[in-house]
Amino acid sequence: MSGITAHYQLYGKSGSFEKKADDIALGLTIGSWTNLAFLEQEQLKKHKGTVRSVTEFENILHPIHPERIKGEIKVFYPAANFSADIPAILTTVFGKLSLDGEVKLLDLEFDTNILSHFPGPRFGIQGIRERLGVYERPLIMSIFKGVIGRDIEYLAQQLRQQALGGVDLVKDDEILFDNPLTSFETRITTGREVLRQVYEETGHRTLYAVNLSGRTFKLKDKAKKARELGADALLFNVHAYGLDVLQELAEDEEIQLPLMAHPAYSGAFTSSGFYGVSTALVLGKLTRYAGADFSLFPSPYGSVALEKSVALSLGKELTKPSEVKQSFPVPSAGIHPGLVPLLMNDYGIDSIINAGGGVHGHPAGATGGGLAFRQAVSAVLEGIPLEEAAKTQSELNTALELWR
Amino acid sequence: MSGITAHYQLYGKSGSFEKKADDIALGLTIGSWTNLAFLEQEQLKKHKGTVRSVTEFENILHPIHPERIKGEIKVFYPAANFSADIPAILTTVFGKLSLDGEVKLLDLEFDTNILSHFPGPRFGIQGIRERLGVYERPLIMSIFKGVIGRDIEYLAQQLRQQALGGVDLVKDDEILFDNPLTSFETRITTGREVLRQVYEETGHRTLYAVNLSGRTFKLKDKAKKARELGADALLFNVHAYGLDVLQELAEDEEIQLPLMAHPAYSGAFTSSGFYGVSTALVLGKLTRYAGADFSLFPSPYGSVALEKSVALSLGKELTKPSEVKQSFPVPSAGIHPGLVPLLMNDYGIDSIINAGGGVHGHPAGATGGGLAFRQAVSAVLEGIPLEEAAKTQSELNTALELWR
Repeated sequence: MSGITAHYQLYGKSGSFEKKADDIALGLTIGSWTNLAFLEQEQLKKHKGTVRSVTEFENILHPIHPERIKGEIKVFYPAANFSADIPAILTTVFGKLSLDGEVKLLDLEFDTNILSHFPGPRFGIQGIRERLGVYERPLIMSIFKGVIGRDIEYLAQQLRQQALGGVDLVKDDEILFDNPLTSFETRITTGREVLRQVYEETGHRTLYAVNLSGRTFKLKDKAKKARELGADALLFNVHAYGLDVLQELAEDEEIQLPLMAHPAYSGAFTSSGFYGVSTALVLGKLTRYAGADFSLFPSPYGSVALEKSVALSLGKELTKPSEVKQSFPVPSAGIHPGLVPLLMNDYGIDSIINAGGGVHGHPAGATGGGLAFRQAVSAVLEGIPLEEAAKTQSELNTALELWR
Repeated sequence: MSGITAHYQLYGKSGSFEKKADDIALGLTIGSWTNLAFLEQEQLKKHKGTVRSVTEFENILHPIHPERIKGEIKVFYPAANFSADIPAILTTVFGKLSLDGEVKLLDLEFDTNILSHFPGPRFGIQGIRERLGVYERPLIMSIFKGVIGRDIEYLAQQLRQQALGGVDLVKDDEILFDNPLTSFETRITTGREVLRQVYEETGHRTLYAVNLSGRTFKLKDKAKKARELGADALLFNVHAYGLDVLQELAEDEEIQLPLMAHPAYSGAFTSSGFYGVSTALVLGKLTRYAGADFSLFPSPYGSVALEKSVALSLGKELTKPSEVKQSFPVPSAGIHPGLVPLLMNDYGIDSIINAGGGVHGHPAGATGGGLAFRQAVSAVLEGIPLEEAAKTQSELNTALELWR
């Protein structure tokens, strides 16, 4: 029987989890079972939720209510109960339940049949690499900084400096929306021209992800316009909209642009250890299934940081074998060149090293910052310690001194 | 200057909140200030965030880390920085910040200028009352129960029984999606016919809210189809989609149907005391601004329950004076007739008493359940204790005995 298995974390008294799991399996599907007539049971059995496992962790006590221990349960929901879209799935497995005390949704197992309704990334890691012609190293991305209230010349100059440093991608600041100084269209056309010039001068190609923002039902037309104007990729604050909106953008044959999912607002439902949804599920699996070619998230190392195990499991969800393509993991926030060995150790070469302050804050400007990152990546690939490489590469040396 | 003021709750060391507030006000707007040249300051000052207040609660300690106390800060964000839509606003005030430790978004103050971009409810409490011709009492609503896997005759019968009990509204189960047995269209047309018959037989009018579900970009066409087919109202799992999608439905002149916002999935970002967004903001203010005529939420009294102060503040957000119309508060979950005096005391007559098990579980069936609720409401309005009224009203008496 096709369906989805949801994994939940609960806290409760030892011995209470079996009943709770039964209540969920019935309550979120057909409502009741034992008081049904035999014929009704026959009719409803293909809709009945089923408890797949119940695990109690006797040693993991609730930090405030030590009479409660941690439990994990798995419940199977038949596909016959919901349409194969993320809103219906989330409502089924975590609709009412999200309001019902300390329960966190850890994971969702989609079977092949259900997964076939999800596009996954249109380009994926391989497709993005083909666009850039870069295969053997992690990509480097940098972020516009301090661009609110600035004019298009300021942005153009900042973009040029970043591209000259050899970064592969530049993304808009996620809090830069449509505005009279730097409209969506102007950013695309100006950005395109700046990057064309840099390519002509240096042979280095940089892609620019412009922030797709505004009202939901105008997003598709805006995205199509972006494509017409020659945009390289779209940044999207998916969690302030909804994952299904991302999926709609990914599936549209007239858009066909790489989609970069930003984690803005996702902390509202991933940060608690007791409530909400796991980071790996939301920013990992579902973001990938819905069609993001890139998923940004806080790395384990910066000022805004995820727990290391969480950040690693997220990366795995984006890249592990699946019917859909891989999404690029983009660990972010507070990244400087000295962290490159850690990030490459964690995420391998199929990841993106993304920096804001770590590029712009370089004493030699954004260009020097980008170069320092490229030098750090090369050193790791060649097995040379950064300190060693820094002896001959001044931008890296400066970066290591600044951010040691 | 037009803008939005965000209220946040934080935990931190005593004396640390001023700096944190400054960091937020700058970090989420122009990035830096003191190192800008005078001319740049002039250019950017209309984009600069401002700390409006910082309050420390020396007596409210973090339950696990008692060296941290609670603080509340208010930060003003100029309207020049974002487009006047919910995704841009949430990304600005709680995008990156949602991922930055123990910070909860408590409230957002919209000024009149920004609020003018939001429709509010199309009908509101007054408009819904006009549709029903009921003015002087709370409305009664009941919910289809156990309808997954059932056919349309089963639903029709259940709808008829509910309507015969005198309920004003019946809503779909939020986990009933499009399915071959009871499609969206069939539910509307069958429901309409059932309710027309009941009206002819009894003179009592009941409205039916059908669950609008499926992919985001098909919702408008589906809603228009619903209107053509004579639907009374739409139930919508807004938090599994996104508040802006609700707003799109509310604004569409070709839809013009009452919208009932279901709280499914909202617990994922409202339940934690340390992270996410306050219930009053999400299910109250923003749901109202985005255009819901009804907002469902767990009452303080049922099995799935909100803290009473939270449930009351939510009701206030839905009904307090504002440029937009009022939304009906619909406290739900585990409601039985014995709770009617409490609910009417909490929410007054401009609210909806909503029950599932409390209607269907009545020994005289859903019809008896509905009658018991109507009798309880009448008793409260007349100032008669329920026990007293139950002496002459058998359905109420039965209900009080069952759920005492």
